[in-house]
Amino acid sequence: MSLIVCKFGGTSVSSPERIQNVAKRLIARRQEGNRVVAVVSAMGKTTDELVGLARALNPNPPAREMDRLLSTGEQVSMSLLAMAIEARGYRAMSFTGRQAGVFTDATHSKAKITQVSSERIMDALDRGFIPVVAGFQGITPDGDITTLGRGGSDTTAVAVAWGIGADACEIYSDVPGVYSADPRIAPRARKLDQISYDDMLEMSAAGSGVLQMRAVEFAKKYRVVIHSRSAFTNEVGTYVKEATDMMEEAVITGIAHDSSEVKVIIRHVPDAVGVAATVFSALAANMVNTDMIIQNISEAGFTDISFTCPGADLGRARETLDRIVPQIKAKGVVVDDDIAKVSLVGTGMKSSPGVAARAFSVLGERNINILAISTSPIRLSIVVDASQVAEAVRSLHTAFGLDADEVFEEKQLSAEEIAAKMSKGR
Amino acid sequence: MSLIVCKFGGTSVSSPERIQNVAKRLIARRQEGNRVVAVVSAMGKTTDELVGLARALNPNPPAREMDRLLSTGEQVSMSLLAMAIEARGYRAMSFTGRQAGVFTDATHSKAKITQVSSERIMDALDRGFIPVVAGFQGITPDGDITTLGRGGSDTTAVAVAWGIGADACEIYSDVPGVYSADPRIAPRARKLDQISYDDMLEMSAAGSGVLQMRAVEFAKKYRVVIHSRSAFTNEVGTYVKEATDMMEEAVITGIAHDSSEVKVIIRHVPDAVGVAATVFSALAANMVNTDMIIQNISEAGFTDISFTCPGADLGRARETLDRIVPQIKAKGVVVDDDIAKVSLVGTGMKSSPGVAARAFSVLGERNINILAISTSPIRLSIVVDASQVAEAVRSLHTAFGLDADEVFEEKQLSAEEIAAKMSKGR
Repeated sequence: MSLIVCKFGGTSVSSPERIQNVAKRLIARRQEGNRVVAVVSAMGKTTDELVGLARALNPNPPAREMDRLLSTGEQVSMSLLAMAIEARGYRAMSFTGRQAGVFTDATHSKAKITQVSSERIMDALDRGFIPVVAGFQGITPDGDITTLGRGGSDTTAVAVAWGIGADACEIYSDVPGVYSADPRIAPRARKLDQISYDDMLEMSAAGSGVLQMRAVEFAKKYRVVIHSRSAFTNEVGTYVKEATDMMEEAVITGIAHDSSEVKVIIRHVPDAVGVAATVFSALAANMVNTDMIIQNISEAGFTDISFTCPGADLGRARETLDRIVPQIKAKGVVVDDDIAKVSLVGTGMKSSPGVAARAFSVLGERNINILAISTSPIRLSIVVDASQVAEAVRSLHTAFGLDADEVFEEKQLSAEEIAAKMSKGR
Repeated sequence: MSLIVCKFGGTSVSSPERIQNVAKRLIARRQEGNRVVAVVSAMGKTTDELVGLARALNPNPPAREMDRLLSTGEQVSMSLLAMAIEARGYRAMSFTGRQAGVFTDATHSKAKITQVSSERIMDALDRGFIPVVAGFQGITPDGDITTLGRGGSDTTAVAVAWGIGADACEIYSDVPGVYSADPRIAPRARKLDQISYDDMLEMSAAGSGVLQMRAVEFAKKYRVVIHSRSAFTNEVGTYVKEATDMMEEAVITGIAHDSSEVKVIIRHVPDAVGVAATVFSALAANMVNTDMIIQNISEAGFTDISFTCPGADLGRARETLDRIVPQIKAKGVVVDDDIAKVSLVGTGMKSSPGVAARAFSVLGERNINILAISTSPIRLSIVVDASQVAEAVRSLHTAFGLDADEVFEEKQLSAEEIAAKMSKGR
């Protein structure tokens, strides 16, 4: 008998019909002999709607009130899911973050989990209930409601899984697992049966949206096995765990891409000591996450400094540079938002030299221009023109032997097809 | 410096614009030198929508989960109102039922308040905050969330007013106060400057929808002064308190009417001992609130028993009678839902005989047929045909000297008119 946590995101609980499906799924997992704890996000776009209401009233809503407001979204879905389970003859009990014992620090809107006290959940399990926990929220030791920020519900699920000593934390979403590349642009992408925490972290950081990096970090630290799987079928998905079962790691596990970054070039910067430090300290102070930094000599005594950052940080980057550029006597700022980053990820890369050389020659053969490069021991990231990102991913995917025999077919399944798939998979 | 509670209903907080108006109003009350505590309902139709979602998932949602679900509605509006106040440069802090110390029994969905601990609210007031309390919700001594049922937010406001020792509990709504009759059908109705608890209770019980009876009962028991007033203008409304300032009470304070009741007739009931007891015990056991009961002899040894009850209870009444009628060997059941109840209310009635005789003759002159009558020491209720209710109210209003000189004009005020009225009234 396994003890499992099943986490369902906002899309999976966006309507009464979908909540019914989640209830069915939980009961099926229970009937298979498991002890089950559910973790849920807010319904569909609820959180965005609440943020919109708040901003209509106050451009800078007080953080404490914002957290109290947003936490209601998960409180609605947890109660509705508990009701749906009860309607099917099983006992369920909902838990707010407070009741689930998810303690956090007091950093409103992006609180960090400091402790998990799972006695009440264990007690409910022992009494035969299916506990349903509100994701995304916690409580400070003073009793103030907090929210965990982006990826919060996945993190709640992993934290609760750790707290109760679950055998696995199943994270359900609208994709069947982690793929070797985004199948929407690389149709020969393969679903991975397993992936190590380290590779998954690099994939998430490089733009693979299946799992939130923060939840994977928590899972790695506390050795929680994540099972990323489809909310709509019963197929086995991808296990994320410490080490995979393979004798030797593949050189490349997967290829991630990210079109949301922009490249910023500061032109004609006097090449003096401390200039780069001035620029990047100011950017960091203004919460701009700079990624790849490149310095080119443009003419004697001057240099161009360029960096990439998330598109969402561009406003803050401009604001910072408008202040800094006159100060360092540079000539101005150019922004290129038509770029994309392609990343090859693989723990096996460490022991396989020549990955970069091979990647560059593959791209060169296809006339794909390389705009910037950065590396980690298990990742190689290349910035290319946005128009060439799909071709770059596909050609690298083929060249590094990742192609599947079957071509991925994306389609919207009908309710009947989902039902058929689920009964087949069970 | 007065200490006041200001309660705003769902209509007053149904949009960001309206929440802004509520914030302005609270700040104005504060600028006038008052210490202010706000109590809010859920936005607009939120509660109904949540009930709809719950019923889509479970026809009999578990009461504990239902209360947890519904309590989120007021949590949203309390946070939004606190944000709106902060946006205007005043400090605000929201309080759930738990945090406001509203303790209740464990009767989910219609919990009764057992205790109010207002230390945290007083503390926030002392620190210069405008506390914003979620209406309609409380907490059991075990820490379970409860809701108070119909009229819950008004009751929260009165309970909080009592808890903090407020000088008045201002209940804002879309009408300017308590009228001597419903001005929509009696255009010469007058707004009352004041009304006693007892008269207000009878008015509320007889169908006047301005204040919830339960809140008035609480106010009477703990001597909390209620000020019923408009959310859209600054006019003084109606004070509800122990005794009015008049030397002698008017004979009739007001005329209420209620078109939501139905009349049920059980035909040809054998006139045996205990039959009425059987019928009305069964109805009471099935939660049917019977009001006026009339027994007519129809022929020797048989009788017709009729009663009125709220239209909402009719389903349960039919269900009960389908079971009881064969058992008592009656002939069947007839329902008349085209009726209305007109009630004359006045503490002065006690010392003024002849009110009933006068009312009957007024109605008789106008050929309004009297279908049933019931009385209390300070109320006379008459059931008439639904088509004649407006005429009955108007003619009694005139006959008992209640008519105002001015004719009430109902109109939707534009935003500009409201602003003009508010600045004029201030």
